[in-house]
Parts: sequence; C-alpha cells; structure tokens
Amino acid sequence: MPKISEKGHKMPSSPIRKLVPYAEQAEKDGKTVYYLNIGQPDIKTPQIALDAVKIHSLDILAYTRSEGSENYRKKIANYYDKNHISVSHNDIIVTTGGSEALLFAFGSIMDADDEIIIPEPFYANYNGFSTASSVNVVPVISKIEDNFALPPIEDFEKLITPKTKAILICNPGNPTGYLYSKAEIKKLAELVKKHDLFLIADEVYREFAYDGVKHYSILQEDSLKEHAIVIDSVSKRYSMCGARIGYLVSKNKEFIQTALKYAQARLSPPTLAQIASEAALSTPDSYFTDVTEEYVQRRDLLISELEKIDGVKVAKPKGAFYCIAELPVKNSDNFAQWLLESFSYENETVMVAPAAGFYSSPNVGLNQIRIAYVLNKESLKKAVKIIAEALKVYKD
Amino acid sequence: MPKISEKGHKMPSSPIRKLVPYAEQAEKDGKTVYYLNIGQPDIKTPQIALDAVKIHSLDILAYTRSEGSENYRKKIANYYDKNHISVSHNDIIVTTGGSEALLFAFGSIMDADDEIIIPEPFYANYNGFSTASSVNVVPVISKIEDNFALPPIEDFEKLITPKTKAILICNPGNPTGYLYSKAEIKKLAELVKKHDLFLIADEVYREFAYDGVKHYSILQEDSLKEHAIVIDSVSKRYSMCGARIGYLVSKNKEFIQTALKYAQARLSPPTLAQIASEAALSTPDSYFTDVTEEYVQRRDLLISELEKIDGVKVAKPKGAFYCIAELPVKNSDNFAQWLLESFSYENETVMVAPAAGFYSSPNVGLNQIRIAYVLNKESLKKAVKIIAEALKVYKD
Repeated sequence: MPKISEKGHKMPSSPIRKLVPYAEQAEKDGKTVYYLNIGQPDIKTPQIALDAVKIHSLDILAYTRSEGSENYRKKIANYYDKNHISVSHNDIIVTTGGSEALLFAFGSIMDADDEIIIPEPFYANYNGFSTASSVNVVPVISKIEDNFALPPIEDFEKLITPKTKAILICNPGNPTGYLYSKAEIKKLAELVKKHDLFLIADEVYREFAYDGVKHYSILQEDSLKEHAIVIDSVSKRYSMCGARIGYLVSKNKEFIQTALKYAQARLSPPTLAQIASEAALSTPDSYFTDVTEEYVQRRDLLISELEKIDGVKVAKPKGAFYCIAELPVKNSDNFAQWLLESFSYENETVMVAPAAGFYSSPNVGLNQIRIAYVLNKESLKKAVKIIAEALKVYKD
Repeated sequence: MPKISEKGHKMPSSPIRKLVPYAEQAEKDGKTVYYLNIGQPDIKTPQIALDAVKIHSLDILAYTRSEGSENYRKKIANYYDKNHISVSHNDIIVTTGGSEALLFAFGSIMDADDEIIIPEPFYANYNGFSTASSVNVVPVISKIEDNFALPPIEDFEKLITPKTKAILICNPGNPTGYLYSKAEIKKLAELVKKHDLFLIADEVYREFAYDGVKHYSILQEDSLKEHAIVIDSVSKRYSMCGARIGYLVSKNKEFIQTALKYAQARLSPPTLAQIASEAALSTPDSYFTDVTEEYVQRRDLLISELEKIDGVKVAKPKGAFYCIAELPVKNSDNFAQWLLESFSYENETVMVAPAAGFYSSPNVGLNQIRIAYVLNKESLKKAVKIIAEALKVYKD
C-alpha cells in the first residue's frame, strides 16, 4: 500500500473537529447545543451582496483574471483608502479566502524548513498552512495576564535565526481579541527592518475594533513598504465566510509578482463570490455601526457573566469576536468533551474550543478555552450559565 | 529588503501569460484576435446551474463542511455510479477547483524533494503545483508520432527511484487530446502496484471522449483501490470554469483522511459555487450529446484544415478539446509572438500557446503549439487560414 507523506501525518486536525461527533450525539440525545466554538457569525450578510448573484446576467460562468478583475481591485483600493491605507489596485491579489492569501504568502517568502515567528495563542490553521508549506512555526508566548499584548521585543529577538523569514500577527487577534496599538506596531516595524524580515498581518477583523480605539494597519507604516504583507478577507467583515474571497496586499512589487505566479497556477478566484464581494463593498456604514454595537454588547455581557464565575480568568477583548477564558480545570479538552457527552443543564449544553490547539508550544493553555461570541445575547447568557453550572460539578 | 523564497523564484509563469500583452496590443492596433490559446470554452453553462444561484434563499453566506455537504457528495457519488465508477460519498472531498484537489493530493503523498513521474507534454500548471509543493516532476516523453500514446512502461521504470511517490496522467489529455485505452490503464495499474506508487488521474475531461470510445477511469480498476486518486472538476464538464469546484476521489481511506486535514485548514469550498455545481448535476444528457457533437465537428474541421498546410504535423485528438500541432518553424514561442505583433491577414490574427511550456524537459516541443478548439467552426476555420497564410511568409 503506497504511503502517506510525513507532512500529511503532521498536518494538524482542527482543534474543534474531534468534538463534532460528541456535539452531534448530544443533539441526537435531545440536548440543545450552544455553539461557542466556531467563528461563523450569526450576523446577516448585507442584502446588497446576496442580491448581486440573484441578478447576474452570465451565460458562461467563466474564469476571471488570476489576480481578480481590475475593476474589483480598484474598488478594493478605494475601500483601503477610506480606511487610511494607501494602496493601488496593482498591490492587491484577490484570493480564495484569507486561507489562500496565507498560502501564497508563505510560498512566496519561505522555502522548506524556513521559520516564521508567531505570537501564541494564534489562529489554529496557521499551523496547518505552515505544515502544508513545509515551514516551521516558532511561537513566542503572549499571556492572559497581559491581556495577550505584544510580547517583549527581546522575546522575539531571542528566536530569530538565519532561517527566520517573517513574523506573523493577527490584528485584532483570533483567538485573543487583542488589538495591537500603534506603538506596538511601530516596535514590530523596527524589529523586522533591523532583521530584514517580512511582517505579515492578518487583518481580517479590521472593522471589529471596540471602545473607540482605531485599528492601525501595518500598511499605514510607511517605512514598511517592502516588508508589509496584509492578509484580508470578506468572510467576517460582511458575514460571508462561505464566499471564500480574500486579498493579499503588499507594496513590495517583487513579492506581488511572485504571489501572482501562485495565483496563475490555480487560474482564478471564484467568480460568483467575486460578484457578491464586489457588491458587498457598497454596504452602508450603518451596517458596521450596528454590527459593532451588537458585538460590544455581547462582549460586555459575556465578560461580565464569565467574571462572576469562581476561578474563571478572562482577557477582555478589544476587537474581533473571540475571547480566551482560563477555567478552574486541568484539561479543557476533557472538559469540553464532558460538556457535550455527560452534562446538561435544563437539557442544554455548550460546545467550546479547547485553547491548546491555538498554541504550538506543548502543554500551554491546557486550562483555557476560546469562546466565539457569535450568538445572540440571550443564547450567550444561557451558555455562560451552563458553563457556570458545569464547573460546579465537574471533576478533572 | 527581505527576500523572496527560492521556490517563489522557481515558480513557472503561465506559458501563455507572456503573450497576453502582445494580444492586447494587437487588439488596440485594431486587429481581431482569435484566441486558440486557452481552455475557456465558449459553450454555454447549463441554465439549471446558472439559475440555481438566482433563486437562493440564503441570508447568511456561511461555510459549508470542509469536505462539501453530505447531500452534494451523495449526488456526486450517483454521478460516478452512472459513469460506471463505484464510490461512496465518503470517498469524495469537494475542492476549490481541480487545482486545489491536485495540491491536496501532492501534499498528502509527497514531502519536499519527492518525485512524481508525468508523461509530457502535460498541463503546464502541474509544474506550478509541483514547485509550490516543493516536489520534483520527472517527465517521461510521449511522442506526436505515436499520437501521444502511453510511453513504454520500461521508460517509466527507468525513472523510478526511492523518491518516486506517484505517477500522474491526464485522461483525456490536456494538451494532447489523447485518450488512454483500457489496456494502457491496466499497464499503469501493474506498474504502480509493482512499485507501490499512487496513480493520480486528472479526469476532468471524462465526458469529452470521441469516436464511440468510452473513457476508462482508474477507479474502474478494482485492484487500484489503495493506489488510485482521481482529480475531477466541474469547470470543463459544464463550462463553468469560474465556479472553482472540483473533487478529490479515492478509496484509500488513509489518503482521504489526510487530504481532509488540508481541506479543514482552508475551512470550506465556495458555497455559491457549490449551489450552482450541485444543480449542474441535473443537466440533461442531451446537453453532453450536443456539446460532444459540436467538439467532434470542430476537431474534424481543425485537423483536416491543419493537415492541408505544408509541413504541419498534427496528432488527432480522441478527447478533450486540445490538439498539439508541429509547425515548420524553429521556435513556436517566437512565431506566436510574431503572429500577434507583426502579422495579420484581412486584419485578423491568432493567439496560440507555444507547446514548450507543456514540457518539463528542456528544448523539447519547440516547434509545437497547442490549439484549444473552443471557438465556433467558422472562427476556427478562419484562424487556421491565418496560420496557413502566416507560415507562407514567416521566417525564423
């Protein structure tokens, strides 16, 4: 029998995937399950985007240009301009989700066994894309006590080797909800310039910045012209995760030319989704005001309810729609499975994401969970109540 | 300035891409250009697929399951059953085009520096996916004199090393139009079993088999249960290249489980395109009868017209919608550029794909071009006339 590759064996499973059968069984057993585990928002997609594909006049569903149509990219450049980010449409490649943007970026700047430094906890699929690209993640730990702020620059410098090619941040952060300050971005800018590294920022949650603080993009840092690579996506912004449209943005021309070769090999991003995503750029500002208001209310409710529970520690998110909570348990993986399999409160239970899968260091975050506040306030409140009741009786 | 990766430098440009500016200039100069260079058919997408997205009732454009919905995969399994291929929906992963299916397959069975043997000339993007996956293509040459039939098995055996993990064929072939016989597939089956390799077959042109000959899939070969991996796509079948929906199909459970981890890392194939593609499965058989009839007429016209030209040699395609023609020129790359830049006949010219980009051996196929017969018969006839007139005056 022919063999699977070593990297195929190494490819991580999704940290929530193994709990899915338990959730399915819980539902079969008649329990209601509140899903706090995934970043699929319940927010409606802007109608203008949904309608755009209903009125298409295509008679051949053809390829678009590999980098996305010029017209669409010009509109994207306008979107950035509105967000105080000055780029040309030639600095943009439309990708199949932020996922593909990451893969093109990794492939364009790293060879097998090269290293990328990422503050952890981080979006679990960075592990998958790194393994798929045969490169190694070098984690630098950020702490719940510090609200997951940028780790000291010395911690990064200790990890830099000749194989280090880039630093990757997610801002605002999944799973931390942390929003990097302008001062933190400037520190990272100095670091990558000093060591001649790329700085990749996954800014897919750009609009989800709370408490009056403005998101500061690495593309606003002029001195990073050759260093900055932004990963973007329509998935969360317009609640259209299923479109699978993202962008790769950089002013480094050699980088964009290289990434374009990856884009050409896979021919074209999805055409129907581009029609919907182009229309989504005309979403009225009020949509974002409403959505942000909703998320802030959810966050405030979630945090205040979690803080009422004995032994629970939580980092208050400043953006995105996730938070990491530390629980008075030894192993949140077991706890999450037990919640689905063996516990219910008023015939309801909760699915959470064990946080260990968001760390690449072993044995870190074992008592933490990630909560996505993608449910309405009433459901969120019930879900936290269930966690509280569960912790009263749970034994490791 | 931070550096691009070695593999980024190695990534091949599309073999037709560099001619695009010349075609654009030719159009600006007022010349009509017949595009014989790309595999974007002019055939209409089935109305049922185009309509499906017009009547969607989504209010959130959400992720689907990473492997595609169970319902869609069950319908795909029915499609295979109709084509005498017996697979379960669990043997299928829905991918973002055949492109992604190839990337998942390469990642699941090969590590950096592993080798894959491919009969050349082959679909040029196999080079791109190999470079992106840090693996090496080992070409085995097939010849225009043999109509691009399967090279002798001894030629394959000479190339097998401990690093060889798979053999990849495209059947029917792009760019050759060759349709492998059942006997040829059986020879390959013996070979991969003897050396414990995977056999990957890109069967995206399955329906385009002419002259009453039936396509024989590697999945029909029972003994290949653990070895066979099929790459499939809706792009050409339903003339919906822009959907970006493909399938990865294998009865090797360990392989599918591994590929699923790649699928999970990128979350989901595009949702709107899955709606269109699921509907496309209900396309009436008469659509394919009509399309096949049209392609056969085009092929017959193309071949007979090409054969009238002095010094042109052509392999008669048995499937797909490409053919390779050998021209009485030294370098078809220069000829193709000259056609766009310096030649016109009745103010019209032609864009063809120089075939060298479909070979990975250096200095092979330099006098060949690939012609995609994706234009109507009248245009095709004019296009060949232009080539004939051009060859009368062209000097290398």
